[in-house]
Amino acid sequence: MIKFFENAPFVAVEYGYEVEKILYKGKSKFQEIMVFENPYFGRMLILDGVVQLTERDEFFYHEMLTHVPMHAHPEPKKVVVVGGGDGGTVREVLKHKSVEKVYFIEIDEEVINISKQFFPTLSCSIDDPRVEIKNMDGAEFIKKASGIDIVIVDSTDPIGFARSLYSEEFFKSVSNALTDEGMCVIQSESLLLHPDVVGEVQHTIKSAFPVVDVYTAPIATYPGNWWTFSIGSKKLDPRQMRRKCELDTKYYSDEIHQYAFVPKGLYEKLMQGKLKW
Amino acid sequence: MIKFFENAPFVAVEYGYEVEKILYKGKSKFQEIMVFENPYFGRMLILDGVVQLTERDEFFYHEMLTHVPMHAHPEPKKVVVVGGGDGGTVREVLKHKSVEKVYFIEIDEEVINISKQFFPTLSCSIDDPRVEIKNMDGAEFIKKASGIDIVIVDSTDPIGFARSLYSEEFFKSVSNALTDEGMCVIQSESLLLHPDVVGEVQHTIKSAFPVVDVYTAPIATYPGNWWTFSIGSKKLDPRQMRRKCELDTKYYSDEIHQYAFVPKGLYEKLMQGKLKW
Repeated sequence: MIKFFENAPFVAVEYGYEVEKILYKGKSKFQEIMVFENPYFGRMLILDGVVQLTERDEFFYHEMLTHVPMHAHPEPKKVVVVGGGDGGTVREVLKHKSVEKVYFIEIDEEVINISKQFFPTLSCSIDDPRVEIKNMDGAEFIKKASGIDIVIVDSTDPIGFARSLYSEEFFKSVSNALTDEGMCVIQSESLLLHPDVVGEVQHTIKSAFPVVDVYTAPIATYPGNWWTFSIGSKKLDPRQMRRKCELDTKYYSDEIHQYAFVPKGLYEKLMQGKLKW
Repeated sequence: MIKFFENAPFVAVEYGYEVEKILYKGKSKFQEIMVFENPYFGRMLILDGVVQLTERDEFFYHEMLTHVPMHAHPEPKKVVVVGGGDGGTVREVLKHKSVEKVYFIEIDEEVINISKQFFPTLSCSIDDPRVEIKNMDGAEFIKKASGIDIVIVDSTDPIGFARSLYSEEFFKSVSNALTDEGMCVIQSESLLLHPDVVGEVQHTIKSAFPVVDVYTAPIATYPGNWWTFSIGSKKLDPRQMRRKCELDTKYYSDEIHQYAFVPKGLYEKLMQGKLKW
């Protein structure tokens, strides 16, 4: 039996997945790409040896990354998605009727092509007329953007070539690109295994946004699993929904919106660097 | 490098741990016991190939298993701990000043001995005069017990020889052993990977208790990680604390008590068998 092993960063544990069949293995200009079939999780997308998504549980990540900021905003019309070449985030964004335009900025065209071929349930909305795809560096796009309601950064880990998306400079550009009620969100690792990284991302966003917060979702295929999403807002409190959720979702709901946010006391500890476990 | 691999039940994923040093490997009358050192998690206890605890993160499990029911009860005096031979649960129970007696029912004496030798930070309270150790089947002990305030079942998975602790018959005995304000708690697998098991345990407890509920904790070394604790109560609502937490804890707090419970809507779906992911 073939197996794929992924090492959790900084932690002496690895996750091993049974590989039923390798569907694709190649190298783009930016990274190694692999797609394989696992008997439980279905098709899995691996970039540079790190699990990005599985067919079975991708909805946890894509719903939570997208719908929390989208519901905290009164009426998101213009949205930027940085990364997320698989299309899962764009699919969720387009569930919101208010959306008129999605700038889909994926540096690696190959990921989009692979997803169209192997992950049709994720890439299904990429060709929607409201979507404008640009294969370029998200940070460069953001520098020149304006009038944006929501920026969703759907990137790989803050190591390697996605590092620039976790910088103060980047979040300052994001803030400039956003309208007054705008907000941005970015995945920020596990609260269980990497509370130090979560805290760092929060402080970085704080350098550019008056309102910063963090919420979580359970994701079995991301090491540490109690996964965080860091949010920066120019004015509005992201814990507060501006309208009820009426979308077709598997996990996200009005109730989950509240439940997802890290409790205040735990959050204070995090920001003081006292979450050490 | 030596590695230890654990297969998640029913799921095509395994967790691999670096083994720095094997400290103990043997077989008791009931199970295979191993203790090894991992560079990140510290010493780890393995029973029949399943990770039971690590020095680094055991507090999540032991605090949450113990302090939720203990704080939901007005004044727990007599407590039964079934299983938990490592002593972590007994240690947490004894943090409560009201406790006069702990019946510590561990069928496998070897686990207690191994823990005394290799896990002193867990087994530290086993010799407290309030603790009465009995190496016998927990179900047999419970049948004859009475006047108990809290029963904590700190068992291995509901497969193998711990299965009898997940039966209707067992919970009926537990109910008979408890006082009017009594409650019991048992670990019930991952809400992410085994929602069907969680639902089954809830329904089983419901056959014996009018009040049933489930709460969670993030535990990195249990597959699926979003771990559940199922609680049965004769009268009192376990979501409500009867006094503030004034104990020395790393994770549990007044805030976490509330946060831990599965939101009502999600809970309803679980009980209707609609949590399928």
